[in-house]
Amino acid sequence: MIPAEIIKKKRDGAVLSHIEIQEFVGGFVSGSVADYQMSALLMAVFLKGMDKTETLALTQAMLHSGVVIDLSNIKSAKVDKHSTGGVGDKTSLIIGPLVAAAGVSVPMISGRGLGHTGGTLDKLESIPGFNTQLSIDKFKDLVGKHGVCFIGQTKEICPADKRMYALRDVTATVECIPLICASIMSKKLAEGIDGLVLDVKTGSGAFMKSLSDAKILAKGLVDITRGAKKRVTALITDMNQPLGLTIGNALEVEECLEVLNNMGPSDLRELSLELAAHMIVIGGKAKNLDAARKAAEDTLKSGRAMDKFIEIVGAQGGALELPKADQKKSLTASKSGYVSEMDVEKIGIASLSLGAGRMKAEDKIDMAAGIVMHKKIGDHVTKGEPLATFFYSTGRDTSSAEELFKSAVMIRLQNTKAPRLIKEIISSRK
Amino acid sequence: MIPAEIIKKKRDGAVLSHIEIQEFVGGFVSGSVADYQMSALLMAVFLKGMDKTETLALTQAMLHSGVVIDLSNIKSAKVDKHSTGGVGDKTSLIIGPLVAAAGVSVPMISGRGLGHTGGTLDKLESIPGFNTQLSIDKFKDLVGKHGVCFIGQTKEICPADKRMYALRDVTATVECIPLICASIMSKKLAEGIDGLVLDVKTGSGAFMKSLSDAKILAKGLVDITRGAKKRVTALITDMNQPLGLTIGNALEVEECLEVLNNMGPSDLRELSLELAAHMIVIGGKAKNLDAARKAAEDTLKSGRAMDKFIEIVGAQGGALELPKADQKKSLTASKSGYVSEMDVEKIGIASLSLGAGRMKAEDKIDMAAGIVMHKKIGDHVTKGEPLATFFYSTGRDTSSAEELFKSAVMIRLQNTKAPRLIKEIISSRK
Repeated sequence: MIPAEIIKKKRDGAVLSHIEIQEFVGGFVSGSVADYQMSALLMAVFLKGMDKTETLALTQAMLHSGVVIDLSNIKSAKVDKHSTGGVGDKTSLIIGPLVAAAGVSVPMISGRGLGHTGGTLDKLESIPGFNTQLSIDKFKDLVGKHGVCFIGQTKEICPADKRMYALRDVTATVECIPLICASIMSKKLAEGIDGLVLDVKTGSGAFMKSLSDAKILAKGLVDITRGAKKRVTALITDMNQPLGLTIGNALEVEECLEVLNNMGPSDLRELSLELAAHMIVIGGKAKNLDAARKAAEDTLKSGRAMDKFIEIVGAQGGALELPKADQKKSLTASKSGYVSEMDVEKIGIASLSLGAGRMKAEDKIDMAAGIVMHKKIGDHVTKGEPLATFFYSTGRDTSSAEELFKSAVMIRLQNTKAPRLIKEIISSRK
Repeated sequence: MIPAEIIKKKRDGAVLSHIEIQEFVGGFVSGSVADYQMSALLMAVFLKGMDKTETLALTQAMLHSGVVIDLSNIKSAKVDKHSTGGVGDKTSLIIGPLVAAAGVSVPMISGRGLGHTGGTLDKLESIPGFNTQLSIDKFKDLVGKHGVCFIGQTKEICPADKRMYALRDVTATVECIPLICASIMSKKLAEGIDGLVLDVKTGSGAFMKSLSDAKILAKGLVDITRGAKKRVTALITDMNQPLGLTIGNALEVEECLEVLNNMGPSDLRELSLELAAHMIVIGGKAKNLDAARKAAEDTLKSGRAMDKFIEIVGAQGGALELPKADQKKSLTASKSGYVSEMDVEKIGIASLSLGAGRMKAEDKIDMAAGIVMHKKIGDHVTKGEPLATFFYSTGRDTSSAEELFKSAVMIRLQNTKAPRLIKEIISSRK
């Protein structure tokens, strides 16, 4: 293999073969392809694209740069859920134990907050003692014993992805559908899953602002999962307002406990049940979606989902004594009307700047900080009524968060319908 | 400056500012811009282009990454000639002394053979003792004393170009007009010249096979030279057959001596006189091209050009006792007819494979090896008559050279007109 010949081929818009992609990524991992050659190829891919077959080959090359976890000794089906990221998106914490309690194993490898969006690992780590840095053997052991386990990326999994992402980040090649798809899917396929449910977010708080872009991403992810011979369903869901009412790590865990107690905000409950139902169908524990939905609801209502959550928190060393902020402040409406629109990215950044996330990679998260929303789109609000409450630590300057939040929430005289939660479902089952 | 922001701008097809280009190249030289960022930018430039202003800014940034030679203490105008490279293209050895003898200084920094084409440095080094590795101070001294000096690239000149070219070579970003132009011109402008004559080759032995591509390259080079406030003329000249009759280092020097003796093949003599005339005009030593052409012819006929050549060879340590090959072989015509077409790139590679050039960078050149042509396009040939003579050393396998040469020369029954030597002249003088 001559790396420059492969770069040239993509530069000229040709389709790379499976073997060319495999050799290039393999060479990158082994050192015979240099960083500067990978970044040239990434830019050529950014500008010339990759088709379905190439993207699958890239995913598989990245996947096989590291360990693929073998969960074949676990008898039940292994199904994970992946969300493309949003604000207040905490469904993993509900779905993991719920689906496990319904008999489908959930081997969940999650990420940290990225940009304005939160991360499952950060949320779980707001539970004192909760350990997400387990070895792969311990992970396999806990999935086997409890049907669910939550860990972070390990260095054995997809080393090519880690190095490629680091290059993309500094060479302006992040926002590229085939590269995004291969990065997500190589890590998901490394979990040793039989199937996957994708939650592709769209709206002002999502990476894909438009429905059409979200569909392209969902289609790309579904194609790879199918190509890898795994069952898959993708839901395109709303991120034009935060999911649920809370943003911030311990606040979000608390809200998950409400849902697991069969209460909590209806959108969070509904999306969790829907995603869980699709996972149960894919996992073969229900003959159709209706039956799966009923199974999910039963698992929630019976308390078995909550029991499972408490069980796995305990198994991973956590104690459910969530930290509480020592300061709070109400944000009130400056006029009366209906909440009609939110800039959710701004709300996410407002929460970050209260301490709930990292502005820089080296920042330490304030686990108790964040925002509780009191109004959602379509709700009426009277001038002076609280729109949200900020939670933070003494000494935190909240002025930029306040400004961001105020500019992010539109109040208009005319009533607006709440955005539809589930916009589209793309299923691989014919 | 955030390197990724500049890469992103070019990726999206925007025009980079002078300052952005300067900071990026400066950062590359100082180490704050990594190789992988430069290669991503180079690929984006390859696919999105650079306009005239950007290319000039890139040239200037590369130029100022190193030393710009100051020849201001030399009173006469300093004018160089640059050829984009061909087979048998040896005009520098004639023009340098000729133009110097006509009163215009020629500070000539040349390159080595690249691909199938020869290099002025290699040719000069076939003269025993000739030293092309002089310091910049020695170079200035010799240009001052003799009006001409021939050296190779030094590490003080355009270090950015050297590193960028090394990256381009392994990331499939070589064949890109703005990058080619900036690479050529940054090195030429570093010579401290007042003006430049460009010999842009077109045809089967040139990098630009088509006239239209050659025009684009010539235009790009002229624009930069003008932008740098230097006088410039570009000649687009034929490379559909080797220039002159010889290919190979010592053989080409011998042919140059013939021309300097007011003999030699007419095409080499004609192109040398024309290029020299343009240099003399640009150097202000003639009021128009006709007068310059007459001055060039007079300098040649009077023997002053030859005297100057002998003078500079001596000054650079050379002794004109050229090496001679111990083996030779005639290549004969397989049928009668007219030489109608040549694949000059193949002929160049045939000469390389006789030992006259490098197949790999580490190869040692056989200075005596090469090809003497006996027929050119339009000449009649009788079956069994020699087309060319190969010169080489005992032990050399000539079979692949023979095969290449035979497949490169087309003999047809119908007569063909010789290709026009000078196809177009692009001048910056209005």
